[in-house]
Amino acid sequence: MHYLDNAATTRVDDAVADMVYTVLRQHFANPSSLYAPGAHSEMVIDQARQIVANSLGAKPEEIYFTASGTEADNIAVFGACKARRAWADHVVVTGYEHPAVQNAVTALERDGWRVSVVNPDKEGHITVDQLVKEVCAKTALVAAMHVNNEVGSVLDVAALAKLVKEKNNRTAVHVDGVQAWCKLPIRLNATQIDSYAVSGHKIHAPKGVGALYLRRGYHLDKFLYGGHQEKGMRPGTENTAFIAALGCAVERINADRQRRARVEALASRLWTGLENIPGIVRNSPADAMPDVCNFSVENIKSETMLHYLEAKDIYVSSGSACSKGEASHTLQAMGLPRERVDTAVRVSFCGDNTPEDVDALLEALRCGVSEIAKIRR
Amino acid sequence: MHYLDNAATTRVDDAVADMVYTVLRQHFANPSSLYAPGAHSEMVIDQARQIVANSLGAKPEEIYFTASGTEADNIAVFGACKARRAWADHVVVTGYEHPAVQNAVTALERDGWRVSVVNPDKEGHITVDQLVKEVCAKTALVAAMHVNNEVGSVLDVAALAKLVKEKNNRTAVHVDGVQAWCKLPIRLNATQIDSYAVSGHKIHAPKGVGALYLRRGYHLDKFLYGGHQEKGMRPGTENTAFIAALGCAVERINADRQRRARVEALASRLWTGLENIPGIVRNSPADAMPDVCNFSVENIKSETMLHYLEAKDIYVSSGSACSKGEASHTLQAMGLPRERVDTAVRVSFCGDNTPEDVDALLEALRCGVSEIAKIRR
Repeated sequence: MHYLDNAATTRVDDAVADMVYTVLRQHFANPSSLYAPGAHSEMVIDQARQIVANSLGAKPEEIYFTASGTEADNIAVFGACKARRAWADHVVVTGYEHPAVQNAVTALERDGWRVSVVNPDKEGHITVDQLVKEVCAKTALVAAMHVNNEVGSVLDVAALAKLVKEKNNRTAVHVDGVQAWCKLPIRLNATQIDSYAVSGHKIHAPKGVGALYLRRGYHLDKFLYGGHQEKGMRPGTENTAFIAALGCAVERINADRQRRARVEALASRLWTGLENIPGIVRNSPADAMPDVCNFSVENIKSETMLHYLEAKDIYVSSGSACSKGEASHTLQAMGLPRERVDTAVRVSFCGDNTPEDVDALLEALRCGVSEIAKIRR
Repeated sequence: MHYLDNAATTRVDDAVADMVYTVLRQHFANPSSLYAPGAHSEMVIDQARQIVANSLGAKPEEIYFTASGTEADNIAVFGACKARRAWADHVVVTGYEHPAVQNAVTALERDGWRVSVVNPDKEGHITVDQLVKEVCAKTALVAAMHVNNEVGSVLDVAALAKLVKEKNNRTAVHVDGVQAWCKLPIRLNATQIDSYAVSGHKIHAPKGVGALYLRRGYHLDKFLYGGHQEKGMRPGTENTAFIAALGCAVERINADRQRRARVEALASRLWTGLENIPGIVRNSPADAMPDVCNFSVENIKSETMLHYLEAKDIYVSSGSACSKGEASHTLQAMGLPRERVDTAVRVSFCGDNTPEDVDALLEALRCGVSEIAKIRR
């Protein structure tokens, strides 16, 4: 199996699955219970909180566990705007956000908020200046992705936060860091970013756990209501097993110090190989994260190519899994012609991928381009 | 270990833990991915959806998986009110709801909604008529627990829904069924209940998964925003492993057909035994669910007794774990004197508890009452 869709989700790491099993068996007590087994469950959570905090250059008390990146984004976006509604009526957002941010902002727009959308150019770039330019005295929130999930564009979010605060120090800055976490180094405490959302299942933890960084002293309203868990910001009995798994996954990925170099080599091998296949156009910017490589294959619909590759046990996607088969929202925001959008292929790597995976993909693409063309003739 | 705090959380069933491990290892693909492994993950979810639907007397398409009972309650409460805000300004709620409903309603109140709170009487009873009486032309929502988590009071929620709809057929009826699910039979499709929230970790599934029943044709606004998952009502990549675990837990608990009879015998053994211990006052109503038994121990603070019992490897609680050490909200709503509230002990059974657990507890309580009194003298 050549699994090259790691931006959609990743295989659960063996050690992580073992951790889940162990915690489920050994630490079933409610972390809020007052007896010792409850305190032990709480310790399991606190250990993971320390690990996640370290990975982000943050303090443990700034980390709030959630059930997903989506939930973290919702808490941040709605909480920031609600807390500022007395004086603010405006949100700035990129045109290539994940639906968790994009659709939350659209909901705010329906509720009367003004929204400025900054679209990427044809290369997939958005500049910090473009976003900052939109900030005004009534801007509650600037929300931007650290790494785009469809083409891999990287934004300098530290610079963004700095310049936004210079223009309006009451404006909140939220960053969706789901595709960047543990791949691109960040020390959040050295930035003015207010909130940062991450997800477990992009780094070999299970689906169903994420985290939200909230800068100490940052004010946002609650979004979810219930018990006191996660200081009341994310109520509901804690998912002890998956929180422990999240900590384990971070330790595993960070222990692999050659990961970035290997992924860069894989991306480079892919782009070089693609040059020899006719009809391929690159959609990812030249300076994109190597983890996400997006290109279009002339005249071959994404679905056709995906299923052709699947038959050879190679798994890629046409874009975000969260949009299930819909045309890529990022490529549309880039203003690419419909033909380019409908023929897009996203290849996304993890640290377990090998040069053989890339070679298998290249060979299959080469065959696919010629075979599918033949069938059509 | 005598674990008698099953209303706080339950031990994860062995078969359920195995199921989690298997799914983590075998079905890591994103259920939204278009290739076959993604479809397999989706099938795992659909199987669980069918099982959960059956357990509630509902159709699979009426079941939405969530990360917790709290999340299910929030989606239902906020979604119902937001969808009715054009004509409604009023909510009816019991005074002994779980914080997931209670605090959500308090948030609505801060946003200008009128709230009618119906408190239980000194026996822990609330009648359907009391709740229905509060419904008016502008009532968006009636929210009530099926089984109270602190004293075990049972409400006839089918009758509630019927009478609410007779009075105002636009009023939504939400039921928090977390403590009732798989313990008290319900056929939701035979009722007019609009939404019903359940949680996995009260029935030996892991913490971190729940479900929400939404009656077909029932209209509520979205609360969370993101991808298309769970028909957009609960976006975020599906927690395939825990959803499968939830289905497994339901099958396991439902296969144990003698469970209810055993739990009734345990409760009966407990109440009979307590009659012979001086200074015990029953807080649970006489017709409460046998799963939850609440009583006060004259002159001994809950925490003192809890830790005394813990030293004998017996685990009970002073009330809801979600309120972590705060005075019981249900007992206060019942209007009990502070002394009764501060000396409360909640014993909650599961199908794995034995008469020996009850006897160990009774013996320890007997010793505790006399020993703690001696220390004081």
